[in-house]
Amino acid sequence: MFITFEGGEGTGKTSIINLIYQDLIKLGYKVYKTREPGGSKIAEQIRDVILDVKNTELDYKAEALLYAASRRQHLMEVVKPKLDDGYVVLCDRYVDSSLAYQGYARGLGIREVLEINRYAIDDYFPNLTIFIDLDPKVGIERIQSNRSSDLNRLDLERMAFHNKVYEGYHELVKMYPERIKVVNGHQTLEEVYKSCYKLVLETLNKGKDK
Amino acid sequence: MFITFEGGEGTGKTSIINLIYQDLIKLGYKVYKTREPGGSKIAEQIRDVILDVKNTELDYKAEALLYAASRRQHLMEVVKPKLDDGYVVLCDRYVDSSLAYQGYARGLGIREVLEINRYAIDDYFPNLTIFIDLDPKVGIERIQSNRSSDLNRLDLERMAFHNKVYEGYHELVKMYPERIKVVNGHQTLEEVYKSCYKLVLETLNKGKDK
Repeated sequence: MFITFEGGEGTGKTSIINLIYQDLIKLGYKVYKTREPGGSKIAEQIRDVILDVKNTELDYKAEALLYAASRRQHLMEVVKPKLDDGYVVLCDRYVDSSLAYQGYARGLGIREVLEINRYAIDDYFPNLTIFIDLDPKVGIERIQSNRSSDLNRLDLERMAFHNKVYEGYHELVKMYPERIKVVNGHQTLEEVYKSCYKLVLETLNKGKDK
Repeated sequence: MFITFEGGEGTGKTSIINLIYQDLIKLGYKVYKTREPGGSKIAEQIRDVILDVKNTELDYKAEALLYAASRRQHLMEVVKPKLDDGYVVLCDRYVDSSLAYQGYARGLGIREVLEINRYAIDDYFPNLTIFIDLDPKVGIERIQSNRSSDLNRLDLERMAFHNKVYEGYHELVKMYPERIKVVNGHQTLEEVYKSCYKLVLETLNKGKDK
């Protein structure tokens, strides 16, 4: 069982994955939590190229190809071996992040970015993807709550991008209604977590029925 | 005009490009010579990940995606601006190297690797590609001629790979008879160079007629 978590900044994905990880361990599952690039030296080297602040000339398509390469390496080195070994794998971000960020928000096209990602992941689509649906402004304010100033011009520009990412995720929800389930991110963290956990258990139980 | 040079190891591509570069300069052309990853800091960072000897677990598909990313970046940062500026661009290796090495010799499939490269290069196929056709054994022996010993076991294993690359190039010649021209690499370097130069001039003159 391969379960991924998606959403913008400040949605609390990481905390929620940690809680669900503990719960499933207690229930006796073999569970592995990871994040892209996560635990693969090569995938991290690739990520370093993408995130290098000096690389301002990085072309958007080159960026999308690098994310696909990093995803492939993480999948083959980390995720696939764990799935083959019977683990439930919880992954913070996966293919849908590229579709929302590069495909939709960068304007490369969801279908086009999907094509190169299909090449990268073969048939390894998640059994369940949870999208935590949170107004990007609220998410950004959450992660910036330690700053005293209001949002500046650069933040507002970034906001336009985060809004596009958010729209992109909603496109994906329409494209994959079976795979992607939406959880309302405006609830308390405890409530968001409970909603996510319920979906995870449903998917695991469905898996058992088969 | 975008002209690329392809072939296995020891075919003398680099020397030939240097000679043709000088010739075209004398004829008054604006000429730019480059090689993948060539002159783009980001493309070289990507290449470092691919060629890092410690990265023995690098997945073949991830490798192909990295080459495509590096190619994209080199194209957008170096090749395209020069073409837009009216230069004749001579490039040592390009998309056909991925098709022959990753697509054919690694067994990923020429069509599949072509798909991701098409994404990477848009419509930037070369006006002319010169394939220097040389028995891989001869090529390898040339570059190893400073070694006194015969080919060892590892060299022979590598030979199997180089033979596959060579077969791959011949597949490409069949696929792209208009674009890829074959030059017999078993001639002297002087003769190989002359044959290449003739093809380059024909292509440049055809370009003028248009």
